Amino acid sequence: MSVVITNPPRVGRKLAAAFTRFGVATVHEAQGRVGLLASYLRPIYPGAKIAGSAVTVSLPAADNWMLHVVVEQCQAGDVVVVAPTSPCDTGYFGELLACSLAARGVLGLVIEAGVRDLAALTRMRFPVWSKAISAQGTAKETLGSVNVPIVCAGQSIRTGDLILADDDGVVVVPRLTAEAVLRQSEGREAKEAQTRARLRAGELGLDIYGMREKLAQRGLVYRAAEVEG
Amino acid sequence: MSVVITNPPRVGRKLAAAFTRFGVATVHEAQGRVGLLASYLRPIYPGAKIAGSAVTVSLPAADNWMLHVVVEQCQAGDVVVVAPTSPCDTGYFGELLACSLAARGVLGLVIEAGVRDLAALTRMRFPVWSKAISAQGTAKETLGSVNVPIVCAGQSIRTGDLILADDDGVVVVPRLTAEAVLRQSEGREAKEAQTRARLRAGELGLDIYGMREKLAQRGLVYRAAEVEG
Amino acid sequence: MSVVITNPPRVGRKLAAAFTRFGVATVHEAQGRVGLLASYLRPIYPGAKIAGSAVTVSLPAADNWMLHVVVEQCQAGDVVVVAPTSPCDTGYFGELLACSLAARGVLGLVIEAGVRDLAALTRMRFPVWSKAISAQGTAKETLGSVNVPIVCAGQSIRTGDLILADDDGVVVVPRLTAEAVLRQSEGREAKEAQTRARLRAGELGLDIYGMREKLAQRGLVYRAAEVEG
Amino acid sequence: MSVVITNPPRVGRKLAAAFTRFGVATVHEAQGRVGLLASYLRPIYPGAKIAGSAVTVSLPAADNWMLHVVVEQCQAGDVVVVAPTSPCDTGYFGELLACSLAARGVLGLVIEAGVRDLAALTRMRFPVWSKAISAQGTAKETLGSVNVPIVCAGQSIRTGDLILADDDGVVVVPRLTAEAVLRQSEGREAKEAQTRARLRAGELGLDIYGMREKLAQRGLVYRAAEVEG
Amino acid sequence: MSVVITNPPRVGRKLAAAFTRFGVATVHEAQGRVGLLASYLRPIYPGAKIAGSAVTVSLPAADNWMLHVVVEQCQAGDVVVVAPTSPCDTGYFGELLACSLAARGVLGLVIEAGVRDLAALTRMRFPVWSKAISAQGTAKETLGSVNVPIVCAGQSIRTGDLILADDDGVVVVPRLTAEAVLRQSEGREAKEAQTRARLRAGELGLDIYGMREKLAQRGLVYRAAEVEG
Amino acid sequence: MSVVITNPPRVGRKLAAAFTRFGVATVHEAQGRVGLLASYLRPIYPGAKIAGSAVTVSLPAADNWMLHVVVEQCQAGDVVVVAPTSPCDTGYFGELLACSLAARGVLGLVIEAGVRDLAALTRMRFPVWSKAISAQGTAKETLGSVNVPIVCAGQSIRTGDLILADDDGVVVVPRLTAEAVLRQSEGREAKEAQTRARLRAGELGLDIYGMREKLAQRGLVYRAAEVEG
Repeated sequence: MSVVITNPPRVGRKLAAAFTRFGVATVHEAQGRVGLLASYLRPIYPGAKIAGSAVTVSLPAADNWMLHVVVEQCQAGDVVVVAPTSPCDTGYFGELLACSLAARGVLGLVIEAGVRDLAALTRMRFPVWSKAISAQGTAKETLGSVNVPIVCAGQSIRTGDLILADDDGVVVVPRLTAEAVLRQSEGREAKEAQTRARLRAGELGLDIYGMREKLAQRGLVYRAAEVEG
Repeated sequence: MSVVITNPPRVGRKLAAAFTRFGVATVHEAQGRVGLLASYLRPIYPGAKIAGSAVTVSLPAADNWMLHVVVEQCQAGDVVVVAPTSPCDTGYFGELLACSLAARGVLGLVIEAGVRDLAALTRMRFPVWSKAISAQGTAKETLGSVNVPIVCAGQSIRTGDLILADDDGVVVVPRLTAEAVLRQSEGREAKEAQTRARLRAGELGLDIYGMREKLAQRGLVYRAAEVEG
Repeated sequence: MSVVITNPPRVGRKLAAAFTRFGVATVHEAQGRVGLLASYLRPIYPGAKIAGSAVTVSLPAADNWMLHVVVEQCQAGDVVVVAPTSPCDTGYFGELLACSLAARGVLGLVIEAGVRDLAALTRMRFPVWSKAISAQGTAKETLGSVNVPIVCAGQSIRTGDLILADDDGVVVVPRLTAEAVLRQSEGREAKEAQTRARLRAGELGLDIYGMREKLAQRGLVYRAAEVEG
Repeated sequence: MSVVITNPPRVGRKLAAAFTRFGVATVHEAQGRVGLLASYLRPIYPGAKIAGSAVTVSLPAADNWMLHVVVEQCQAGDVVVVAPTSPCDTGYFGELLACSLAARGVLGLVIEAGVRDLAALTRMRFPVWSKAISAQGTAKETLGSVNVPIVCAGQSIRTGDLILADDDGVVVVPRLTAEAVLRQSEGREAKEAQTRARLRAGELGLDIYGMREKLAQRGLVYRAAEVEG
Repeated sequence: MSVVITNPPRVGRKLAAAFTRFGVATVHEAQGRVGLLASYLRPIYPGAKIAGSAVTVSLPAADNWMLHVVVEQCQAGDVVVVAPTSPCDTGYFGELLACSLAARGVLGLVIEAGVRDLAALTRMRFPVWSKAISAQGTAKETLGSVNVPIVCAGQSIRTGDLILADDDGVVVVPRLTAEAVLRQSEGREAKEAQTRARLRAGELGLDIYGMREKLAQRGLVYRAAEVEG
Repeated sequence: MSVVITNPPRVGRKLAAAFTRFGVATVHEAQGRVGLLASYLRPIYPGAKIAGSAVTVSLPAADNWMLHVVVEQCQAGDVVVVAPTSPCDTGYFGELLACSLAARGVLGLVIEAGVRDLAALTRMRFPVWSKAISAQGTAKETLGSVNVPIVCAGQSIRTGDLILADDDGVVVVPRLTAEAVLRQSEGREAKEAQTRARLRAGELGLDIYGMREKLAQRGLVYRAAEVEG
């Protein structure tokens, strides 16, 4: 059955925005190393970073009709997350849909399929994380669903979950744990900032993390190089 | 037999140049969704766009002798299109050949194989759409042909066809239909410009395209989200 | 056995630095077309070029403990080269380790696995050639070795070998032949500079390289295009 | 947290066994085209077909410790379904673990990673659907979980769900809908059996499915081939 | 425009059948190394070999409606060759369509997309060369064309061309040159049969082909291994 | 320089043959998890297993001239191991060369490139582990070397090393350690035989390997499933 769920729960905008201080890798660690989308999702241009509330779309192969439907369900601070029901690299999304989403304040798109109009999207600074780049268009014949749970790039995603995306990839944080994960990320980042300063000053991780004894116990041996003739 | 066809027909320079106003996706749509080269052809740097007359090269795996031959057959406004007779990712093309082609006014290269000297090509702004990047060089032992019909990245290409390439990929338009496709592209682009303005102003595609009734007929259901505890 | 070889031989810093005048493709040619690492190693940002002395690391899948160990073995002008003992795309390396290596004057990293913190690494201009980009972290449980011979991306590499990396990829030059290969590269480059000037001026490679006779002997035929109706 | 859930719900054995009359494609259709695992999961030998109750395992990259833990949780009619938390092609599973699972009546294994000992597994007729074949072994250092919900090859799977696997791939049917899907499959298969008989007898699908009118409406044209000289 | 070309020219049945004495590699060589389809087309079971007259189908991504249309255009000795207009790995073809084609005497299928019902197709001995195996089904919504020229797996194919397929892959021979290529294949095979006998008897190719002198001229050196301690 | 090293050292025939009692996975473990060739090398038919002395060939892309040269250097019990100097999937090897190698008692071929004539090779039971299957032929224009050290599928291989290949892949054992590795394999296999018997009898690995305490220490928790409504 094809259904559009309206007025779904959303992670708070302020809470979401707070995540942009951290990288995907940091949040993934803070969350206990779960929720990372498959690494074949790549940004269409370098340097973008977004954090917002997922609006999910499940749609058929090579048919982007539901992308026209989802626009109306979006509000400022949302991130549209799209998964086709069978693998497909066709170009589902381009400049026109980006204009439409941008007009509603959508932050960006995550799609396990193809996109096109890269030059225009880059000029508009509308960021997309996609599996493929393809000028090949789609049909508008078959229904799908909006705001139902989906699996995108190997992760379960529910509408209202927090999506954080940067040059490293995309991570999903469940809505109900987002606040706790934010605090974990802050703690982690604070600790890393200190470590970073010490490492930049030339201290060794071997000493900062106290690794030398454990390495020796496990049997690591140091041996001077033999002189070659 | 190895043959170089001289003085082939060419799509007109002015006609070709007119295509640079449009993206590959637009022209592909305007042409009825045919002629798109496989999406594994990617530009070596972002932001390039060229439109010119194809000069075709068919050559053996890992042998670029014919690239030295093709230079003499090129004139200003041409795009060299190269397909090896068996799949090969070797670096067929680099800075020296680019200097030679640029000296004749060639606009760029499309090659279903590898290229090298990326830093120099980027500095020169000589755009290439290739399947691979590889510093591995080639031999100059075996002949091929110039200006014969080839299949490159899954599309049949004849010398004199129009090649349009941008960040989305590469599309071929047969020489004899190029003028008609240009007019189709203009019409399409004019219509899209209007739609773009309306979408930017916040109108919905659902209304602009009149989709609501058809969606309902096909059985799309809207349902408010249930409140979770 | 897990071992760290200390004070290994190194290619001289001045000798290594001299290689940055040449591209990977030129040095690969000058060396007789050996030593090129597999083309799936790609730079994380365009435009970087480094030449330094290899410090090798062999480590287990999804475990980056040895990267903390290797830092202490590095000095200015080194390039760290890492190969896991089984294929793994996990993110072994990020901002903190980059700070630590940069503090010792390490020039960059070559790794047949994944990296993360791309935005930070790009900002720091710490170049990495990697097989994957992944925010997925690693364990610190299992030992490996430092400064033992490794096979990385299809090439045998020994500590102290010269590593040259640019937008085209990565090439290894054995320490003992580095000086000879440098001279070959200089000779090759000088010759190419002349050829480049002549090609830019519009001379043909067919004439510069004297290819016309050999092409004719092999049977290349020139034929004017037939006029289509 | 690492947890082993004991005594999970299971789809009934008789119900599961009834699915072996149908192919993965039929059940996938009957279920409304959801639940198909990614097609990179391939059987290690042709001709196997199993249907049983999922016992799920989530484990780290390159570490198969939890496979030793899961054995004790299995009973006759189970299918073990394994997903690493980061992509990994290492050989997690071989002859010894297969002996252990077979001794408990486990029907087979679905794993989004690598397996080894193919000759022995084929001889034993212990079927495996895997993403890779690799003799590379794993560690036994890090915990994971058993019988928690996992995402395997792009699908959400819960312990007790029905897993059907054959030469076409793997499909998951949620436990609570398995009976309904079985009935749908029976209906579909009965209808297909009739159609199959008619098609074998030479009737055309165009007539059986009544497609001719719709094709004409959409504009399909029939035209005799022109005679070539 | 969507069109079905009826009563196309066909390569003669007897002529086609004569090709089954030769392998794809032999015919590819005899034809001058052209016409080989991309090697990602693989047979669904080992040991099949067919030679027949191409009936071509061009169809949209994830839509197999035209496969129901093509059946009526087929006769005994045909090989159906299918290319989607955009890349798609969905399962376009299964047991029912195979029953229908087999009832008309079609020899097999070549498809640059996915197939399903592998177990049934193998049991029926209906051979398929495909790019993917997938239980995912398709729509029947959008038209395509039958018996128009297509590009399949990188080769131009016209209805009535000879298709030869075996464990090595698929080769196309243009209808009008099929007789000449058959004779070339016979000549080549006769020569190879003699060579094969001599090689089996232990004669060396170096001598049979008279290679020793040319190798020496090119600079090949023989040197005894040095004794290691 | 192109060189053929004659009369190289070889691992003893009896010693090599003794390895066929073990699988590639077992020997890889016994050797300390080194020496495994990349898993993209796959056997052309299932069920083959060989163990012999490596005769190495380094050759150019798409040129198999050196395969004609290597035949003369082979003797009974050898395994020919081939690596192109740049990546290439062309069909270097087919029935004729297989007849020639078989006539000298060569056991099989390992090649990081393509092969053809699969049907004939399967019929002859001449086993090949290759990276690709392709009917595309090669040139005989450019020299390479025989019995020099090569890197094949990511491993350094020297002439006379032991090569063991089966359905799991290919492992190399250095000639001088082959006897020690054989003994390690025997020990390992004997131990595994006992474990296998106990596992088949239903004993758990958890008990045989004494894992329960360590799992608890690391924090593994067992918890009964909650009853769903």
